[in-house]
Amino acid sequence: MKTPLGPANILFPVPAALIVSGSFDEPNIITISWIGITGSNPPSIGIHLDRSRYSLELIRKHKNFTVNIPSADLVEETDYCGLVSGKDRKKFEDTGLTPFKSTKIKAPMIKECPCNMECIVMKEVELNDSILIIGEVVETHIDRDKVDHKDKTKINISKVTPLAYCDATREYWTLGRRVGRVAASEKKIEARLKEEGNEQ
Amino acid sequence: MKTPLGPANILFPVPAALIVSGSFDEPNIITISWIGITGSNPPSIGIHLDRSRYSLELIRKHKNFTVNIPSADLVEETDYCGLVSGKDRKKFEDTGLTPFKSTKIKAPMIKECPCNMECIVMKEVELNDSILIIGEVVETHIDRDKVDHKDKTKINISKVTPLAYCDATREYWTLGRRVGRVAASEKKIEARLKEEGNEQ
Repeated sequence: MKTPLGPANILFPVPAALIVSGSFDEPNIITISWIGITGSNPPSIGIHLDRSRYSLELIRKHKNFTVNIPSADLVEETDYCGLVSGKDRKKFEDTGLTPFKSTKIKAPMIKECPCNMECIVMKEVELNDSILIIGEVVETHIDRDKVDHKDKTKINISKVTPLAYCDATREYWTLGRRVGRVAASEKKIEARLKEEGNEQ
Repeated sequence: MKTPLGPANILFPVPAALIVSGSFDEPNIITISWIGITGSNPPSIGIHLDRSRYSLELIRKHKNFTVNIPSADLVEETDYCGLVSGKDRKKFEDTGLTPFKSTKIKAPMIKECPCNMECIVMKEVELNDSILIIGEVVETHIDRDKVDHKDKTKINISKVTPLAYCDATREYWTLGRRVGRVAASEKKIEARLKEEGNEQ
């Protein structure tokens, strides 16, 4: 019933986020799927970078970066920024993406990305084959037309149309439909267990 | 055009993975969305756990765990395993999920999850408000009917129907459609730049 595939990373879907480092006048973009939430107090994001990356050099120098969530129509630009190095190419120019001034840090955001986070480096951790940079999220921004029409602070995922990345197959996907909300299941399962007389 | 939302985690989508720790006879499940790929040589996965978690206690004791990717029809079980503690409840029994013997480690996998990874703890990192556990992926498994019909080692994402989690809205989503493949964009953008006489 199960087939072994050997040692591999088959964790998916993960984000395909665009990380901007450097300054407004000399910014660089890199696409990172080795990224995740690392804490909530303060909110923090961790990104994993190869030791050789130009972005690592810029982040170490300036101590800040932005995390930008591309919409599905930016799949080509997202892919490109993960393939070429900022040592050789000016990726904002190549892709036509627009740098947008951050409010609390020097590294700019990407205007075309619907969701943006400004991050200040909190910690650097040496790992086996990458460097983990943890950034405190000091400000977030969202396109005004991508929030709920009633609650203007609530993100509307359908309007953002984020990309999801599957490293195992090297494919970019869209999201489909919402199938649940956190804490919706607890009462249902508890009720079922009670019915079954199976309460612990 | 942009609305600031203050410091927050608006990184999405992230995985909603089921982590199993402990032994075959006394296993525990926890749902983790603070999880990500941390390296490829060897393949490794990082999970972030609150200091108070029962799973942390079990992982520290046994030094291994499995990462299991639930399909969308397991959304209720996935949500439940993130809401209650293994100190109080036997979550395999509560949810009806089935422990399945791993081949290289003691912690079992979840039979109903289409993709499974066996991990051995490589490193523990103390962070601000969580503990990062990095596990080396020593074996992976996939349901035989969830691979490509031609290439039996290639995962078919449409058949897996993984869950995607959006922490910012606390919603579970399905994936929609494939919109791109890695490295598909480079030639296209390079050709456009050449046409524009814009080569660097």
